[in-house]
Amino acid sequence: MKPAHRIAIDRIYPDVDGGRFAAKCIANRLTTVAADIVCDGHDVLTCSLHLRRPNERLWTTIPMTDVGNDRWEAVFTPEQLGTWEYTVSGGVDRFQTWLRDLKRRKNAGDDLCDEMLEGQQLIDSVLESAPTQVAEQLSHIKFVLTDPAGYPTACSTQLASLMAAHADHSEDTWLDISRRICVERERAAVGAWYEAFPRSWGKPGAHGTLCDLANSIDYIASMGFDVLYLPPIHPIGQSFRKGKNNSVQADAEEVGSPWGIGSIAGGHTDIHPELGTLDDFLTLWHAVSERGMELALDLALQCSPDHPWVTDHPEWFRHRADGSIRYAENPPKKYQDIYPLDFETEGWQELWHAVREILEFWISQGVRIFRVDNPHTKPFDFWEWLLDDVRQTHPDVLFLAEAFTRPKTMYRLAKIGFTQSYTYFTWRTKKQELAEYLEEVTSPPVADYFRPNFFTNTPDILHETLQRGGRPMFKVRLALAALSVGNWGIYGPAMELQETTPREPGSEEYLNSEKYEIRLWDRQAPHTLAPFITRLNEIRKSEAAIRDHSPPVIETTGDPFLLAWSRYEPATKNHLLIVVNLKPEESRTDTVELIPDQFGESLPTTLAVTDLFTGEHSTRPLKDFQVTCTPTDPVIVLRLLPNPNSRSADE
Amino acid sequence: MKPAHRIAIDRIYPDVDGGRFAAKCIANRLTTVAADIVCDGHDVLTCSLHLRRPNERLWTTIPMTDVGNDRWEAVFTPEQLGTWEYTVSGGVDRFQTWLRDLKRRKNAGDDLCDEMLEGQQLIDSVLESAPTQVAEQLSHIKFVLTDPAGYPTACSTQLASLMAAHADHSEDTWLDISRRICVERERAAVGAWYEAFPRSWGKPGAHGTLCDLANSIDYIASMGFDVLYLPPIHPIGQSFRKGKNNSVQADAEEVGSPWGIGSIAGGHTDIHPELGTLDDFLTLWHAVSERGMELALDLALQCSPDHPWVTDHPEWFRHRADGSIRYAENPPKKYQDIYPLDFETEGWQELWHAVREILEFWISQGVRIFRVDNPHTKPFDFWEWLLDDVRQTHPDVLFLAEAFTRPKTMYRLAKIGFTQSYTYFTWRTKKQELAEYLEEVTSPPVADYFRPNFFTNTPDILHETLQRGGRPMFKVRLALAALSVGNWGIYGPAMELQETTPREPGSEEYLNSEKYEIRLWDRQAPHTLAPFITRLNEIRKSEAAIRDHSPPVIETTGDPFLLAWSRYEPATKNHLLIVVNLKPEESRTDTVELIPDQFGESLPTTLAVTDLFTGEHSTRPLKDFQVTCTPTDPVIVLRLLPNPNSRSADE
Repeated sequence: MKPAHRIAIDRIYPDVDGGRFAAKCIANRLTTVAADIVCDGHDVLTCSLHLRRPNERLWTTIPMTDVGNDRWEAVFTPEQLGTWEYTVSGGVDRFQTWLRDLKRRKNAGDDLCDEMLEGQQLIDSVLESAPTQVAEQLSHIKFVLTDPAGYPTACSTQLASLMAAHADHSEDTWLDISRRICVERERAAVGAWYEAFPRSWGKPGAHGTLCDLANSIDYIASMGFDVLYLPPIHPIGQSFRKGKNNSVQADAEEVGSPWGIGSIAGGHTDIHPELGTLDDFLTLWHAVSERGMELALDLALQCSPDHPWVTDHPEWFRHRADGSIRYAENPPKKYQDIYPLDFETEGWQELWHAVREILEFWISQGVRIFRVDNPHTKPFDFWEWLLDDVRQTHPDVLFLAEAFTRPKTMYRLAKIGFTQSYTYFTWRTKKQELAEYLEEVTSPPVADYFRPNFFTNTPDILHETLQRGGRPMFKVRLALAALSVGNWGIYGPAMELQETTPREPGSEEYLNSEKYEIRLWDRQAPHTLAPFITRLNEIRKSEAAIRDHSPPVIETTGDPFLLAWSRYEPATKNHLLIVVNLKPEESRTDTVELIPDQFGESLPTTLAVTDLFTGEHSTRPLKDFQVTCTPTDPVIVLRLLPNPNSRSADE
Repeated sequence: MKPAHRIAIDRIYPDVDGGRFAAKCIANRLTTVAADIVCDGHDVLTCSLHLRRPNERLWTTIPMTDVGNDRWEAVFTPEQLGTWEYTVSGGVDRFQTWLRDLKRRKNAGDDLCDEMLEGQQLIDSVLESAPTQVAEQLSHIKFVLTDPAGYPTACSTQLASLMAAHADHSEDTWLDISRRICVERERAAVGAWYEAFPRSWGKPGAHGTLCDLANSIDYIASMGFDVLYLPPIHPIGQSFRKGKNNSVQADAEEVGSPWGIGSIAGGHTDIHPELGTLDDFLTLWHAVSERGMELALDLALQCSPDHPWVTDHPEWFRHRADGSIRYAENPPKKYQDIYPLDFETEGWQELWHAVREILEFWISQGVRIFRVDNPHTKPFDFWEWLLDDVRQTHPDVLFLAEAFTRPKTMYRLAKIGFTQSYTYFTWRTKKQELAEYLEEVTSPPVADYFRPNFFTNTPDILHETLQRGGRPMFKVRLALAALSVGNWGIYGPAMELQETTPREPGSEEYLNSEKYEIRLWDRQAPHTLAPFITRLNEIRKSEAAIRDHSPPVIETTGDPFLLAWSRYEPATKNHLLIVVNLKPEESRTDTVELIPDQFGESLPTTLAVTDLFTGEHSTRPLKDFQVTCTPTDPVIVLRLLPNPNSRSADE
């Protein structure tokens, strides 16, 4: 029996709830693992990071470095998608401990005889198991160490490397529980989303189709979006179909809500006949793909009363005491056109697998991104199983959670595997709350498992700021969403055409919402914000500070309505300063206190400044860095560079 | 097979490393447990805290309350010492969910027939397992519910209590890993320590004894100390005995270091003959106990070359290549009078149990507090086992860790079970670093497992501030230690007599240190700070804000040398403001910005102020609250009360 472990391993990073959940990272990006590792006494330690690729049995080992205060770090670049396992270990390095003490004794003028003898014993401990050639080298060194004059050999790098390479690590202490990290592709972390109802993209008076949208795809692509997200494209039920503006009674010609899924034409793996066929879907898929974009489908797990499951699997729905199927309710609200699925049904296993099959069907059609409707009304365990099961075979599939619910629930869904999440961004409108929210969602621990996707608007959310704020406020909200976090999105064309009328005063619903009717949009209208949006997406792609999703750093301004933040990418030293006016109907001027230290550099007293909207170049002092936002230009985006002249003076 | 759990439990508090270690608390004090608990959908939850007393098999259940934002809390008062287990559970409360929706439907004017039917089904689900009498009551209520007019009965508290009392919790979700909390007695958290070398308490020219110290015990007791800590009282070795000022050569009459433990007179369970006998020890023990104090012994796990273990158990020591036993070294430093124990010995199990027996011996003599010397040079696993094993049978025994080592190691020792710890307090002398350190050691997560004991000085540490700062600085350091955290201590009489001479310039060692020789102290010297110390300990006992160990809250002052902090106890509203001058040789005046909100009360514009040193009462405005520290009075302690007059005006 061996004595107790002497090494203690603590505070591993990243870590989501002690290993209960996987942390998140992006393929081919440097990923850091760190831990506190200590030992009793004063011995020298050797610590290692161990990695296990998805479905791999063997560990790969990477040496860790002590970065100070007993914090050990190692970096790696995961190139393979999927869930990796990682853990760390530490052990006493008897050779390095001996070597350190030998050197100290030498410096103190001590007699080294006994220590050289001990060095030989250390070599002996490695000799037995070393390969013949190494054993020969070590035997030779051991002989040299019989004389205290062998001191330089004892200190040689040759001996150190041989001893390190053949050290016995069987007694090392490993972290008690290994951790997991979910490696996803780039699009998980950085993307610009555009939501569109295909049925509004047809000719005037006609029901738009997937092909119509495909024909107009350049309109969306040219604005620089990465993801085209479609509300459900499945057959829409007739029973209790909702009319315009969510009226309970629908006329015969009304188109209904795409979220009322299922009719005699089929369910979740079918396409609404008026939108087209599976071939039309593939036409759209190709049009999108050819432009470097991706298609995202909606996964809304609910059924219209006409859904095939209602008759094929009545046991998957809850029933009222009178035997009828329960429609969706959140008393006193009633959603008669929707039957929720009962995840507590006796037949839950069949139900789970049926959902899994829906996903597999669309994945086999090339879909790699799903926007999940209301995941917070289905059990966490279901999602954890589903997302994990999909990732086992399709680690490139991404899931966006639409969980406009309580904060703890929103974060829990991220922990159990959703790639990214809608957020409270639309309701954060004041300077302080925006600053705090930005910090919350882009800093650990939240940022270790949660990726925000800032939508400026959705078919459900026309925020009061947009209803009242006019064109300047649209610009401000667009810039806030596009330039502060990795993923952002808009629901268009309502956004670029600045649709502002609510269903009724105080409502966040759009009047004549596309959820219930076909809208005709004049996408070429002169007032469109498409050029502004295009420029935002250009900046996102051209500037490393945004492309590489560096977190925003809030800058200090005195003005209570001017919010300024920096984004800084250390490798390229790309530094953006973004300023928005939260009261954009007024001109406001203030000084931004730039603290260059926090960007890992001491900038010179003047900066070369490029305005990324106007293209203007200027040289400006670091001190008294003034900015002015006007109603016409309520958003300022500046690229900051140490002034080339003053820099050359430094060199 | 049952469907998946719908409840997610997160962020339990307290929690030390995901349950790997026990949190700490004090017997008979309110203890709060909290957790985030969420469920999919909108159902009402019922959540519970479950407690298991030490060595108990059954759980005690306490209902938790939702305190907002899905945070659930419960409080309990552990009355039994030892390690308790706790965990939390949550489940959907089907009855309360039904009742909430029933009320909403009633308010919306809905027909309630179907809901009343469902209510009856819910009653049925409880009826089966309910005791006869309850079943009768429920059957009656069920009958009333057959009519929608039974609505008031459905909402009755009688039905709610019956349904709650007999609800089926077998499907509830429990936290994955239960947590532990170590319940210790009051002295673990609050105490004033006095360290004394008994051999210096005899008549001039004689070797002091335990009885001499017993005869002088009122000197220490009257200053208000709770714990008398003795350096090792065991036989001191002769071989390589250290002389005055740590000289390698000792004259025959020199007394040696008490930490050089072991001689022909015995080892760790024996008493140094010159100090007396075990009976004398018990005399001292009784003298201390009669005065409401406790005796703390030193556990220094090391041996002089003359220790019986050296011959009886040579295998417990490390040997050099030449076969001799290795003395303690941290190259180039050498401690020839001490052999460290080898915890990596083959015979480690015998060694561990031998140490356990030392503790059991002294525990059987009445000792309940051990100050552990250099625990960081012995394996963590050893301490974790030892402390746990002692607590199994003696949960009232306390351990103070003397680990002046790296921060991570110091905290790890606290996690594995040390009751309290020496700290870096002596080396924190500037305003900012004191404020930060105070916050670090009194806030979660550190405060959940680590209890600081602030010593002003030790036989090893005469800090440079005391060497230079004179009487005012002694007062400042005494007040800082005594009034900021629960445990504090001094090494006396060096402290109260303001011993300031270092062994050599730049050294933190005392000249003519008591570690190596007998010192004659003039304890009645007029310049003694004993009255000041007495007053500090009086304040600690009379003021609930300190007695109940409320954490310090740093107050804002502009002066870079005036450090101010509040301590506030909510139950009694006892509020102390303490101000010290860190440059006490000068008079300094500044305003303290008092923010009464943070003490849970909105104070009136004037305060009734009592100076706890002078006893002066005054009425002072809350605004522009000025304080002046002078070289004579560099420490201000004020008790603040809302002005009685203005308060009666409020009422």
